[in-house]
Amino acid sequence: MDDLALRRRGLDEVAGDRQRGASELARRCLEVLADYARAHPAKGVDELAAAVQSFALELGNARPSMAPVRNLLNRFLDCLPDLSGQSLDTARRLIVQAAGEVALQSQRAVEEVSRHGAALVGAGRTVITHSLSSTVLAVLSRLASSEVRAVITESAPLREGLLLAQALSQLEIDTEYITDAQIGVFAARSDLALVGADSLLRDGAAVNKAGTYLLALAARDAGIPFYVCCERFKFADYAAEAVTLEEMTASEVSAPQLPHVQVRNVYFDITPARLITAVVTEQGVVPTAAHRPS
Amino acid sequence: MDDLALRRRGLDEVAGDRQRGASELARRCLEVLADYARAHPAKGVDELAAAVQSFALELGNARPSMAPVRNLLNRFLDCLPDLSGQSLDTARRLIVQAAGEVALQSQRAVEEVSRHGAALVGAGRTVITHSLSSTVLAVLSRLASSEVRAVITESAPLREGLLLAQALSQLEIDTEYITDAQIGVFAARSDLALVGADSLLRDGAAVNKAGTYLLALAARDAGIPFYVCCERFKFADYAAEAVTLEEMTASEVSAPQLPHVQVRNVYFDITPARLITAVVTEQGVVPTAAHRPS
Repeated sequence: MDDLALRRRGLDEVAGDRQRGASELARRCLEVLADYARAHPAKGVDELAAAVQSFALELGNARPSMAPVRNLLNRFLDCLPDLSGQSLDTARRLIVQAAGEVALQSQRAVEEVSRHGAALVGAGRTVITHSLSSTVLAVLSRLASSEVRAVITESAPLREGLLLAQALSQLEIDTEYITDAQIGVFAARSDLALVGADSLLRDGAAVNKAGTYLLALAARDAGIPFYVCCERFKFADYAAEAVTLEEMTASEVSAPQLPHVQVRNVYFDITPARLITAVVTEQGVVPTAAHRPS
Repeated sequence: MDDLALRRRGLDEVAGDRQRGASELARRCLEVLADYARAHPAKGVDELAAAVQSFALELGNARPSMAPVRNLLNRFLDCLPDLSGQSLDTARRLIVQAAGEVALQSQRAVEEVSRHGAALVGAGRTVITHSLSSTVLAVLSRLASSEVRAVITESAPLREGLLLAQALSQLEIDTEYITDAQIGVFAARSDLALVGADSLLRDGAAVNKAGTYLLALAARDAGIPFYVCCERFKFADYAAEAVTLEEMTASEVSAPQLPHVQVRNVYFDITPARLITAVVTEQGVVPTAAHRPS
């Protein structure tokens, strides 16, 4: 495959992915980049290094609502040793190695987040969540033998809640599966809300699957805490005003085409910091400014 | 058909109805009752009167979340003239006539609500609603030539939003159709929220399709008013504590059967009065206590 075809294949996969959370997709990007480096038809090291660098930037722009995609790729570029003077084979190996190392850092961070998250939730609680976050799943998994109960949402339009239901079923965790519209009813019957995030913005707001903001509103109204699990790779250096919420194809929402009716499929929403009790990072539980004792 | 078969048929229809709003279903109950009176195998007027009375009470209990069902049937019983001394044929006619009169009162009330609602909304506004309310549709219909725009929700699990989309399309009203999870994103892009209600409780809270409470929370957070269209037949004489939220069969939610996973289908939620800017009744726009100038 030539350079363009290799890029197209990788970009299509990353832009079209609807199953992976932001952390997982960011790590997948590193694999895509490693595959690209392995298969690239470069004639010399400089050509390969330039190609990898520009493809990393391209991949980093593929999912604007997901900060870790860009952050992990930037971290990869920072970690990449100087390739000049190396053989082409060694250069490929060093690129693959750097990608693997950054992926490992990300995975370790997520593990630490889940450890802090599990300690925060504690035993015997009912946790309501929205969408499918691998970090939230890791938290619940750690608590499977501690009588944790889960309330999970369908998560329209692609219903990734079904995947979460399957995972929790295998973990033998008692789970209630609800439509997104029932979030208000079930927040009031839960002890706490726990979600992942695609990005955590400079102003402390969380970008996550549409419906997360509704859960945060319902949690506040029900008087239960709302926690966001979010390793620091998800921190973005811009605020809510700078966010373009990705809109996906309307065909994912099953609705007939009608004159005067436009089907909308905005994939993400923004939960402002004032609705977030605390953020669980790999460094521990960080109360948001709004909840920090003054 | 014997008495039991007639009752079963009517009760099954009313309990199983998922398309009609509370007002429409309450009027349908009066038709069911009229059909019952026409077909009933009573040998005498006293038997017929007793049967109609007890069936009206039975129907009135069929949909506990919908106050107008019981209210219209009670109004019917109040309006029914003394049947003793009448011929069986005349008695049937008087029963059918009373049912028709009460249905007409209900329909007139809804028309008045829609008139006040349209005046409240005014021209050129973007109205976000949830579920399918025939009263909200009547309001939008009155504003079709006044550049009103609508944001409507899928309304899981049975997606009655599709019916509303079809009606608005025919009215040539510019409409955005969203999943329930996008309510938070689109409330902030709308001028006001307008919903129907299945019941309005003594404490001013509104019982309506699950997700309405989320819209009310999002409306408050976005700083837009949240109005409930509700003729007085929907007023209930009990408060939120006394409400049993109807739960429908889990099979309406498409999800696989998994061990440890329970699919829930709570159909209604309760929006407290503090989130309701005003109620539009046939007597005009009534601000809730929370929004009334003191």
